[in-house]
This record gives sequence, C-alpha cells and structure tokens, in this order.
Amino acid sequence: MTVNVLFAAHPDRWDTYQTPLQAAFTEAGINAHLSPDMAPDMVDYIIYAPNAPLQDFAPYARAKAVLNLWAGVEAVVDNRTLKIPLARMVDPGMTQSMTEWVVGHVMRYHLGFDRHIVNPDHLWEPHTPPLAAERNVCILGMGALGTSVAGSLRGLGFSVSGWSRRAKSVEGVTLHHGPDGLKTALSEAAIVILLLPDTAATENTLNAETLAHLPKGAFIINPGRGPLIDDAALLAALDSGHIAHATLDVFRIEPLPQDHPFWAHPGVTVTPHVAAETRPITASRVIAENIRRGEAGEPFLLLVDRSRGY
Amino acid sequence: MTVNVLFAAHPDRWDTYQTPLQAAFTEAGINAHLSPDMAPDMVDYIIYAPNAPLQDFAPYARAKAVLNLWAGVEAVVDNRTLKIPLARMVDPGMTQSMTEWVVGHVMRYHLGFDRHIVNPDHLWEPHTPPLAAERNVCILGMGALGTSVAGSLRGLGFSVSGWSRRAKSVEGVTLHHGPDGLKTALSEAAIVILLLPDTAATENTLNAETLAHLPKGAFIINPGRGPLIDDAALLAALDSGHIAHATLDVFRIEPLPQDHPFWAHPGVTVTPHVAAETRPITASRVIAENIRRGEAGEPFLLLVDRSRGY
Repeated sequence: MTVNVLFAAHPDRWDTYQTPLQAAFTEAGINAHLSPDMAPDMVDYIIYAPNAPLQDFAPYARAKAVLNLWAGVEAVVDNRTLKIPLARMVDPGMTQSMTEWVVGHVMRYHLGFDRHIVNPDHLWEPHTPPLAAERNVCILGMGALGTSVAGSLRGLGFSVSGWSRRAKSVEGVTLHHGPDGLKTALSEAAIVILLLPDTAATENTLNAETLAHLPKGAFIINPGRGPLIDDAALLAALDSGHIAHATLDVFRIEPLPQDHPFWAHPGVTVTPHVAAETRPITASRVIAENIRRGEAGEPFLLLVDRSRGY
Repeated sequence: MTVNVLFAAHPDRWDTYQTPLQAAFTEAGINAHLSPDMAPDMVDYIIYAPNAPLQDFAPYARAKAVLNLWAGVEAVVDNRTLKIPLARMVDPGMTQSMTEWVVGHVMRYHLGFDRHIVNPDHLWEPHTPPLAAERNVCILGMGALGTSVAGSLRGLGFSVSGWSRRAKSVEGVTLHHGPDGLKTALSEAAIVILLLPDTAATENTLNAETLAHLPKGAFIINPGRGPLIDDAALLAALDSGHIAHATLDVFRIEPLPQDHPFWAHPGVTVTPHVAAETRPITASRVIAENIRRGEAGEPFLLLVDRSRGY
C-alpha cells in the first residue's frame, strides 16, 4: 500500500531532501508517494518545517502525524489548527556535524596553518606545533554535543577538559563545575570551545573577567550560541593580544550585520552558522522510522508534549 | 653514578632539546650530566645530528654509543672515525605529528573553511558539507604512517581506502594494490593523501594519466615526498579545474624556490616541510631508553647496520 507523504518545508529544501527521503523510505520498506504538492485530503504524513507556507493544518483530515525537520518546534507547537501528533527532530547527523566542525577548527588552531593558507610573501618558515597530547582543549558545556566533541578530541590525542554548571563525569575528561571550576578550567585552556545552551545563566559566560583567566594566546571557538560571549570584551581581549584568535559560528544577530567589527577583525574568523545543521540523510532516516512506526501501529518517537512546548 | 652526555646537534637545537632530554633522563632514572660542551675524554654518550660541527669521533675514546636525533643516517654512517655503535631515531612523536597534520588538512578540505578564513567581501553564505561518512579519503602508501593516518580518519567517521604496491590488509580500510588497484582507488577518492616512500618505482605516482582517474573536484595532500607528484601535470589539472586544490608539504627542491609556480597558484597551499618532524619529548625518551640500556648492559635499540647503511 502506498503512503502519501507531503513535503511541506521551505520550497528550497525539496532538492536537498527528495533523494535522501526516498532512500530512507526504501531502506525502511515504506512504499511512499513523496511530493511537495498534494491534495490535502490525500496526505497521510506531513514532513514539516515551521518556515513553510503551510500554516493551516485543518484541511489535512486524514494525516496521522506532522514530522518536524527542525529540532525547534516553538513556531508550530501553538498552532491551533494542528490536532494530530507532532514529532520533533533529533538528528544524529547534527551531532556528528558539530563534532566534525569543532575538530576541524581545533586542528586548524593546533597546527597553525592559517599562516600557510594566507602567505602573500611566500615565506618558508617551518614552525613545529606541540603534539596534541601537549595541548589542553577545554569544552564549556558537557551535554550530548560537548561529550561527542570530547570523545573525538581525546581520540586524536588531545588533553581534554570540560566545564558544566553541575558536577558530571565523562571518561578520560577532566571535569570542572561551578563558578570556581570555570576559573580553573579556563586557566589551563589553550583552546576553548563553547557548547553551552542559551539561557539567562549562560549569557556572557566569556566576559572581561573570565577571558582574563585564559592563558595569553588562547584560542576561542564558538559553535554554541551568540550570547555566550560578551562581544565587546572579546574584541578588547583580541586587541590586547591576550586572546590569539577566535572562530565564531553563532551571533546575537544573524546573518552577522556588515557593520559588526567581527567581520573585519584580523583576529576573528566568522563562519555563517554552519557548524551544526540538520543532515538530510540522517534526518530522513528519523522521519522514515516514524512513518514506519505509524504504519505498524507502534508509538511515534520524539513526540512533542504540547503542554510543555517541546 | 653520573653519565656524561654530550649534545652534539646543530647548536640551534640545544634550547629545544635541553629540557625534554633532562626530563626523559629523570623519567628513566638516569643521573646525567648533559651539556653541549664537554671535554671529549669525559663523554659517555653522544647525542648527534649529522649537521653538527662534530665530524671527528676519534677523541671520544670512552664513549659507548652515538645516538642519532634523525631517522636518516646517510651523512654519518660512512664516517671512518666512528667505531662505536650508532643508533638511528624512530620517533613515535613523528608518526603522531604526521597523523595530526594530515587530519587537520583533511578536515580543512572536508569542511571547506578556507572560504571563511579568506572572506574579504564578508559573504554570509552557509554551505553544508557532507558528513565524513559520505567522503572517501584515499591513502597512497599503507606503511606505518599511512596506517596511523587511516586509523585516525576512520575514528572521525571517514570512509577510508588505501593503496599499496603489494596486497595488504588493514582493519576497516578498503585496500587496493598494483597498477589496476591504483586506478580503482583514485577513481573513488574525494581526498588523496600521498604517503609513499621515495623510490624509482614511486616517482610521479600522480601524473597526467593517474590524475585523470580522480573524480573532478578532488583534493590532494602530499606530506610524503616531493617526487611522488609530476609538478607540471598537477598544475595542468588544477588549471583545468579537474583538481580543486592541493596542499603540498614536500618538494623536489626545498625550500621551494621563489619562482616555482606552486607559490602563487590559487589552487595550492605550500607548507614548509612541517608535517612530520622529530619531536623533542618523544625523541628524548628514545634516547634516554638507549642510555638506560647501555648502562644496564642491555643491547641498544635501533642500531644501524653499517654494512647495509641504515
């Protein structure tokens, strides 16, 4: 029997998702008719992104579930036309993506190869970095992402430490917690990675005072959230030479406004929020598994609790 | 009892080695007097690099061994004044160094972050790379270095293949061998890493014909030996767009002459032979272990067979 699946994300996502979704359906043994354009009364499942044109779910009388492509559901959870189950996305590819991105930028700072990528004077100046084992990388935020990143960095030989608000334990990682622990963690870090959530308590975790705890010449990598860093304090620490360089993937306003000093600062690399993106192949498998469950009469995974909002 | 150890490398190496050697001696329980300047008849062991001023070993009548800091001994092995045992260097830190360097440049190509490091127009253009699992990295040369690199890349999730002249087997790596195998290996490679030795048989392994086997847009990383690549063929493949970019650490002539087209080519990153350097901490441990052995009457490790020349 054919299952009719409507692809209701922003239209520019269709080219990206069409093939991986079909592959995931085949892999899961689902005979699906997948289309971005389908009569509402034919639709069995809706693959959805909250920025899609579809905002009125009422005509989709036969649909069994809305399967969100995004982790965030805040823009759909209160939609009053939505009466059927809503599942959010937890994409293992996103964790992997974040881990790869962080490893890449840690290796970049560790090896110091920017000087070879931009070398207009054609200088032949060998410079031997320490081995990874001699370099401490400190991860602020030891949730699922921080733990995955820590594992990969340990695998490459780095000395890895971490900090979280509450005491935790992760094998092979020196963990600190609380305000005093943050000072200790920062004071030993050659490279700091920000993977904290965005809450009132984490805002400006790196500020003038905490930046001063870092050793001179430290590197900062922020793939987490823009508000974790006090921008002005970071710029001052870069200007004074206390911080050697920062790579920032997230900002208070995105895209980063053209007049923001980060763009032109020689001590900052701006990346356009690419560290952790939902990945079509792995996300498609999560979607396919939920459709398989729906057809088999099994409970859906990742269902949103509408009263809680996530 | 104190052991007198002469440090007879190029004088600029003393600052680099003094502390790690003392640490390694302490670790090995050796009470050593280490100095770059010592009366020859006091010397028990000579730590040596072939570019040192010391070329006449005759006055060192009491010395028990010459411990080379370099892997290569071709510039000392035929010294007729040298009558005592000569040990070469096999430094685990060098293998680790090579592995870290290759991982860094693979991640750089994989994530495509050069566009963010050099972004004069401040473009905010998100671009999602595939996950590592969707990217094939092919290693030409599966000796100790190639095997170590393969292990780290697999650990990060890459699809890894390898090629060697003779059939081999390495867990988790798809291995090819022989001329037909080279064609197959290259035809699937998104990123190629050259780690072959420099022999008559490996010269110009990448030439016009073999470069054509690579998929359009492939990346090349050469930390192995300069002569493995036909420079003119690589430049032609870069100019045609068939090869996207190359990072080269080794060259037929080093330092790379200022008039070599690699320097100014937008498709080439030149690094100044830094991928694999003897590392003071790990090399010092190798030296200390040999002195410990000498003092304990145990056989030296890594002894050079003077008749064979290595």
